[in-house]
Amino acid sequence: MTSLQMYDLAGRDEALRFSPFCWRTRFAVAHKRLPLRTVPWHYTDKAQIAPFGADRVPVLLDGDTPVSDSWRIAAYLEDTYPDRPSLFGGDAGRGVARVVSNWADLSLHPLILRMKIGDVFRLIDERDRDYFRKTREARFGRTIEQLVADAPGLRQPFLQALDPIRKTVETQPFLSGNEPLYADYIVCAALQWIRVLGGDEVLESGDPLLRWREDVLERYQRHLAGTA
Amino acid sequence: MTSLQMYDLAGRDEALRFSPFCWRTRFAVAHKRLPLRTVPWHYTDKAQIAPFGADRVPVLLDGDTPVSDSWRIAAYLEDTYPDRPSLFGGDAGRGVARVVSNWADLSLHPLILRMKIGDVFRLIDERDRDYFRKTREARFGRTIEQLVADAPGLRQPFLQALDPIRKTVETQPFLSGNEPLYADYIVCAALQWIRVLGGDEVLESGDPLLRWREDVLERYQRHLAGTA
Repeated sequence: MTSLQMYDLAGRDEALRFSPFCWRTRFAVAHKRLPLRTVPWHYTDKAQIAPFGADRVPVLLDGDTPVSDSWRIAAYLEDTYPDRPSLFGGDAGRGVARVVSNWADLSLHPLILRMKIGDVFRLIDERDRDYFRKTREARFGRTIEQLVADAPGLRQPFLQALDPIRKTVETQPFLSGNEPLYADYIVCAALQWIRVLGGDEVLESGDPLLRWREDVLERYQRHLAGTA
Repeated sequence: MTSLQMYDLAGRDEALRFSPFCWRTRFAVAHKRLPLRTVPWHYTDKAQIAPFGADRVPVLLDGDTPVSDSWRIAAYLEDTYPDRPSLFGGDAGRGVARVVSNWADLSLHPLILRMKIGDVFRLIDERDRDYFRKTREARFGRTIEQLVADAPGLRQPFLQALDPIRKTVETQPFLSGNEPLYADYIVCAALQWIRVLGGDEVLESGDPLLRWREDVLERYQRHLAGTA
C-alpha cells in the first residue's frame, strides 16, 4: 500500500497546521483517495528536510521518493496515480490551474500574510520567532509591529482580490466546473490558512465564497473518510 | 457553410478594432477554424443590436442565431462545434478559464482602460464621445482629463497585475499548456486592446510575455490562413 508522508508546517501547538502550501498538498492527496501521515515541522527545522533537497515545506515522501514544492507535488501525484481521480481534468486544466497557483502566490498570499502576520508570529514556536521576524521584515521592509498596525487596512484589498473567484462561483459550482479540482484547492488552501489561525471570519456574511468553501471542505472530509 | 458575423466595436477609423471582448471572440472563432465577417459597430449604435437582446458587443450571429457576451459566445462555439479544435480542453479547462476571464474583467481591464482612456477617447467616433465621457466618468468618478493625468502611474500596477501570467509562461509554453486555448486568448485580447490603440510598447523589453504573445498571434494568423 502506498505510504505518503508530508512534512507539514506546525505552530507551537503542533496540532496547528496553517501553511497554505501544505493545505494544497493535503487536499490533493485526499482527492487521490490516498492516506497521508503528516510530520510536524518548524521553520527552523531546515536540517530535517535538507536530505530531500528541500528548504521549505511541503515535502512529500512517497515511500522513499521525496517531492518538494506544492505544484511539483500535485503534478507528481497526477502523473504517478493516473487511475485515481484526476486533480486537473486534463492538460488544459493543468495548464490553467498553474495560472491560479501563480495568482494565489503573487496576488493573494502577500495580502493574507500581511493581514495575519500578528497571528502567525504569536502562534509559531519560540524557536522560530527570530527566523520569522528576520525573513518577513526583510521581505516587506517593515517591522512585524508595523505590519500588524497596517493589517486592518488590508481586509478590503483582500476581499477585492477575491472578486474573480467570487464572481466565478456565482455562476458555477466550483472553479474547476462541477467538482472541485486542484484550482479549487489552491484557493481554499489560502482560506484555510486564515481560518486555522483563528479569529473572526474574514469573509462577509452572504459572500458566495462561503458556500463554495463549505462545499470544497465537505468533499474533502468525504475523501478523507474514504481513505480511512 | 457556416456563416459567422460579429458586431465589432470600431473607432472613427472603422478599421480600428480595439475591444478586448471582441478580440476574444475573434481568436475563438479562428481557433475553431471558422470564417468570420465583422460589422463595424459604435458605442451609440445600440439600436442596431437591440433586436438580438444585446446592448454591447461582441454580438455573434451564427446564421440567424444571435449570441452575445464573449464568455457565452465561447461556450456556444465550443458546444456547437465540438468536432472543431477545442477552446477549453474539457470541463475543468472550461471551468478554470472562467476564473481567468473574471480575473481579466475585474483585475486587469480596469487598469488598462484607465491607462489608455485618452487614446480610446481620441480614436472613437465623434458621435460616441459624449456617451463614452458620461459613462466612463460615472464609472471612475473622475473626468477623462483627470484619468489621463493619472494614467502614467498605472503602468507599474498593470505590469505587476500581469505577474501571475508572466510567471506561468516562464515555465510552460501557454497558459493552457502546450497550445493556446481560450484562457490564452482572454489575456492576449487584453494586450491587443493596448496594442491596436498604438503608442509605445507597454511591456518591457525581455518580458517573457512578449514571446508568449508572439506565439499566440502567430498561431492565430495560421488559423486565419486555414479559414481563408
